[in-house]
Amino acid sequence: MNSFGLLFKVQIFGESHGSCVGVVIDGCPAGLSIAAEDLLPDLERRKGGKQKGTTPRQEADEPIFKSGIFNGESTGFPIMILFENNNTRSEDYAKQRSIPRPGHADWVAHQKFGGHEDYRGGGHFSARLTTGLVAAGAIAKKLLKGVTIQAVITEIAGEKDIEAGLQKGIDAKDSVGGIIECRVNGLPVGLGEPYFDSIESVLSHMMFTIPAVRGIEFGTGFDAAKMFGSEHNDAIEDMNGTTRTNHAGGVVGGISNGNELLFRIAIKPTSSTPKTQKSLNWESEIVEEFSVKGRHDLCVALRAPVIVEAATAIVLADFMLRSQEIKNVL
Amino acid sequence: MNSFGLLFKVQIFGESHGSCVGVVIDGCPAGLSIAAEDLLPDLERRKGGKQKGTTPRQEADEPIFKSGIFNGESTGFPIMILFENNNTRSEDYAKQRSIPRPGHADWVAHQKFGGHEDYRGGGHFSARLTTGLVAAGAIAKKLLKGVTIQAVITEIAGEKDIEAGLQKGIDAKDSVGGIIECRVNGLPVGLGEPYFDSIESVLSHMMFTIPAVRGIEFGTGFDAAKMFGSEHNDAIEDMNGTTRTNHAGGVVGGISNGNELLFRIAIKPTSSTPKTQKSLNWESEIVEEFSVKGRHDLCVALRAPVIVEAATAIVLADFMLRSQEIKNVL
Amino acid sequence: MNSFGLLFKVQIFGESHGSCVGVVIDGCPAGLSIAAEDLLPDLERRKGGKQKGTTPRQEADEPIFKSGIFNGESTGFPIMILFENNNTRSEDYAKQRSIPRPGHADWVAHQKFGGHEDYRGGGHFSARLTTGLVAAGAIAKKLLKGVTIQAVITEIAGEKDIEAGLQKGIDAKDSVGGIIECRVNGLPVGLGEPYFDSIESVLSHMMFTIPAVRGIEFGTGFDAAKMFGSEHNDAIEDMNGTTRTNHAGGVVGGISNGNELLFRIAIKPTSSTPKTQKSLNWESEIVEEFSVKGRHDLCVALRAPVIVEAATAIVLADFMLRSQEIKNVL
Amino acid sequence: MNSFGLLFKVQIFGESHGSCVGVVIDGCPAGLSIAAEDLLPDLERRKGGKQKGTTPRQEADEPIFKSGIFNGESTGFPIMILFENNNTRSEDYAKQRSIPRPGHADWVAHQKFGGHEDYRGGGHFSARLTTGLVAAGAIAKKLLKGVTIQAVITEIAGEKDIEAGLQKGIDAKDSVGGIIECRVNGLPVGLGEPYFDSIESVLSHMMFTIPAVRGIEFGTGFDAAKMFGSEHNDAIEDMNGTTRTNHAGGVVGGISNGNELLFRIAIKPTSSTPKTQKSLNWESEIVEEFSVKGRHDLCVALRAPVIVEAATAIVLADFMLRSQEIKNVL
Repeated sequence: MNSFGLLFKVQIFGESHGSCVGVVIDGCPAGLSIAAEDLLPDLERRKGGKQKGTTPRQEADEPIFKSGIFNGESTGFPIMILFENNNTRSEDYAKQRSIPRPGHADWVAHQKFGGHEDYRGGGHFSARLTTGLVAAGAIAKKLLKGVTIQAVITEIAGEKDIEAGLQKGIDAKDSVGGIIECRVNGLPVGLGEPYFDSIESVLSHMMFTIPAVRGIEFGTGFDAAKMFGSEHNDAIEDMNGTTRTNHAGGVVGGISNGNELLFRIAIKPTSSTPKTQKSLNWESEIVEEFSVKGRHDLCVALRAPVIVEAATAIVLADFMLRSQEIKNVL
Repeated sequence: MNSFGLLFKVQIFGESHGSCVGVVIDGCPAGLSIAAEDLLPDLERRKGGKQKGTTPRQEADEPIFKSGIFNGESTGFPIMILFENNNTRSEDYAKQRSIPRPGHADWVAHQKFGGHEDYRGGGHFSARLTTGLVAAGAIAKKLLKGVTIQAVITEIAGEKDIEAGLQKGIDAKDSVGGIIECRVNGLPVGLGEPYFDSIESVLSHMMFTIPAVRGIEFGTGFDAAKMFGSEHNDAIEDMNGTTRTNHAGGVVGGISNGNELLFRIAIKPTSSTPKTQKSLNWESEIVEEFSVKGRHDLCVALRAPVIVEAATAIVLADFMLRSQEIKNVL
Repeated sequence: MNSFGLLFKVQIFGESHGSCVGVVIDGCPAGLSIAAEDLLPDLERRKGGKQKGTTPRQEADEPIFKSGIFNGESTGFPIMILFENNNTRSEDYAKQRSIPRPGHADWVAHQKFGGHEDYRGGGHFSARLTTGLVAAGAIAKKLLKGVTIQAVITEIAGEKDIEAGLQKGIDAKDSVGGIIECRVNGLPVGLGEPYFDSIESVLSHMMFTIPAVRGIEFGTGFDAAKMFGSEHNDAIEDMNGTTRTNHAGGVVGGISNGNELLFRIAIKPTSSTPKTQKSLNWESEIVEEFSVKGRHDLCVALRAPVIVEAATAIVLADFMLRSQEIKNVL
Repeated sequence: MNSFGLLFKVQIFGESHGSCVGVVIDGCPAGLSIAAEDLLPDLERRKGGKQKGTTPRQEADEPIFKSGIFNGESTGFPIMILFENNNTRSEDYAKQRSIPRPGHADWVAHQKFGGHEDYRGGGHFSARLTTGLVAAGAIAKKLLKGVTIQAVITEIAGEKDIEAGLQKGIDAKDSVGGIIECRVNGLPVGLGEPYFDSIESVLSHMMFTIPAVRGIEFGTGFDAAKMFGSEHNDAIEDMNGTTRTNHAGGVVGGISNGNELLFRIAIKPTSSTPKTQKSLNWESEIVEEFSVKGRHDLCVALRAPVIVEAATAIVLADFMLRSQEIKNVL
């Protein structure tokens, strides 16, 4: 339910306005040196409150290691990392409780959990939960020696000039979405399986856990559907499996082929737009005009790259352990 | 590895040119009436050899029930279904073994399995394995009373006129890809979980197990990244959660919202194109010109809709069992 | 690795002398009222420091709820519960590090984790980790309405008179073991599966996670091996499945039959005996005489019943969710 | 449900009087040579019909390999093995359907599956399903190079002289049980985990899937509960971890310590005794006298050792893969 992975496993917990969010990482091999400093750069990239277009909510996001690390190294047992929630303003949410915010999970959560869900700030649905993912991802990256994972924004609000896209949202006083591209280099050949444990299967599974993700494509992706086979096929040119082109995005038959792993994900515009919206008040049973309270990102895509990298690293660390690649690395 | 599902589980086995392919379905509730006739229409839709642009290989695809069914009904124990392979021509593959077909898994499989893989007709990587999925999907559909799942081709080779797209491939003597759209109606509110067990996560996981799938998007998908939040958000209009628009494609916060579930997948052009191609001969270590032998689909997307439906049904049956929706249905 | 369960799942973390131990409970249905008071009686039973024959280490064992509970009720999301470690004396362990304590995991942990394990007080191997299990068990018990689980000590040091058995250890200045018997009443018919998910399989799996458990038997158990079939078979006498005898201990074919579920487990004498012992010093490579430092239970069986109950409740809550029995209970 | 294992996984299927029983083995590394001859000796040991005290039902038990083997070697994909049922006499079962045989799963299956279960010969509950386990075990044994697994009967009907115990049953015209002891040598140090994935946890889980098993104990087991700690503790004597005694049975803290792995299991007397018994007829709702029809083992323990070995091998192969021990072996 709220855990993922076979040999490198993450279990998340927490709520946006509860006392904390966090993660338990189970399966990290013993002997990996881990310090707060290893996590801080990625945690910093995930934070709002600094760049234009992100939420004004500021959290210290200081990782508190509670288990699994001894003398600065992983012990081989579960690593629990906690992040305190300090900067919460829950009163905004209680007031408008019966008006489900469009695009948010308010209504489905209310139906599914019978009103017992923690609705403050989106509760367990909040992107704040990705703090734990980013922490786990930073540890996974350390395991993946020789592998580089880099995600970047390639488009905001339909504009390749990212600044322009963001300005479009600011001018319209509306939220905007974007496209993230992720590239992984240095992977060995042979990770993944045909069918259910294909690299695409497991990566896409993980990517859709990131709030606001609406699509994923590998290599040439949707454009591949318009190509001829002779154009799309990547010809192998040397004994390392290097291909002339990389339409496949580094995965063939579900298995890494040693070329750059490449995928793109679509991020919808932030559901919490500054615009006035309509929604059904489930108490009055009348559709009302209202505006979303709370502090929000104008463009959630801005903070997504580091989360995409973390999610990717978690999946790849698991695949590396499964194919026994990591033992040698440590 | 080669199984999927939590409460409704499929385990596939077999190879393209081995003696058979098949599936074990574990977790089907007892008392569901199951006969070959329930599976035949979907199996027929999956078959090649009939429509223009599909492989000339013809298999009877007669399902042989080996366990789990007694007096025409499921017993609650594993249902094993076997399909014999009769119409195989393996000699084509042995001859060109050392020349990995571009776009196929030949090279990665050889690397990963050290030459022990069954390379004939793609072995375990072959789309022939989807026969078992279609059988399991037909059973899942029977469990999903009141739910309709319909996948259709919306585009071939970039053309909305499907015939025209196919003709493009025939004229160019090249393989082509396409787009499949899947719509599910009649789902209850509340299936799925935030994060790792979101409907999008599990569905996309399953969809990427279908050979040749390169992308998936839900609702408005990639186009959502170009929209403003006020445009994309679906306003709830009544106490059933019906929304005015359906940009979300029926899933919010990972959970079904009772509106139509909608997603699209991109299918790359068949890797086996009739065109002459280049690839490295791993014995001579020289790049050679060659042409793919064997019998193949010109457009694998043509046979994909029923596989997409089956994969969807398997995932949804599992979600329905998890949310205890199926008990009442039976 | 350090998690267990299919639908009601526990993930443990922590070390004996780290900052805390705890548990994440995933899959608890929403709407269950949960307060510290619900956990305290069982936590109290687990504690040492009070009764004769238990460790003098005293911990407050105040459960700190960190997530998954809102307005006093479960939300349907992961419940994280933390217990701080305050009363630790780690210096005892560092001194004798290179002399593995017989019966303890010191040597295997050192081999398996290459010296990176947290060795203080047994680290992750410590029975202190069962605090999280007891907390999760208390919540599971609340879910299991109408079901009573009772574990008692039936034998200490071979004596049915428990006081006498304990005195035997005190007199001998040696540690002792015992037998725990657990009885569950009020279970519905039909929990469990034949083969891998039999009630005995899953319960025994869980019981052997409790430190010091060396054996388990159901119903008549090992004595059944001496009986004739006609003696051992339990004749069904009424339409509820009530049997005249209960040699089966309430499970037939892996499935609950509605009679009392009954099993016994053997607890070895505490590995940390006050006696002087011999062990290999892995630095000097010489067998040395030494005595175990630290504070320990003379008879770990004394604190085991509540842990056995908790472990049982966790397993049964999962089975009840799987057979959709709990929905109606809430 | 009907599968087990993390990296070396078995999925069983079939019914006693259906067309076949069998197993899918998923996760067997590529390149292992596998032939019918590798399985036949263990399959032969499992068979009835030959030795005194076993069922007169004779099946050829010829393994039919359906997938995953190519040119006599494993391919790395699922290995499906089928065994046909030929020698069935189902009419015996239909006649007495409404009288649940004491000790059998007839009544619980009827309740759980609402009458849809295949009741002939015990259906899916039948020990005939262990044929697949024995096949999978034979393959697992081949993976476990340098490891020897040997299970023997140590007691029948309470007699250490096995012949005498069996004669006791024959004389009494009643079924009898027994004790099986299993010893494993050659295991590396470090398999298993503390808590949920302890060797004892996973092995006991597996052992209780074998029909008629009622108890399991490791090392000194239940007798350990009567010992002092100073007696029970095994002192390490050399740098390989060799212990002077082996009360622990080769597992400490859930982890293999390199000494002989030793456990015992209790097998109840065969439920199908030749004696006249009483049971409730669920149609007439009256307790009736009746005698069990069909062909049965007088002492099911006689055929158990090879099943215990197979079950052990399956579990250990998984542990070896998890600790990356097998890569080097192949």
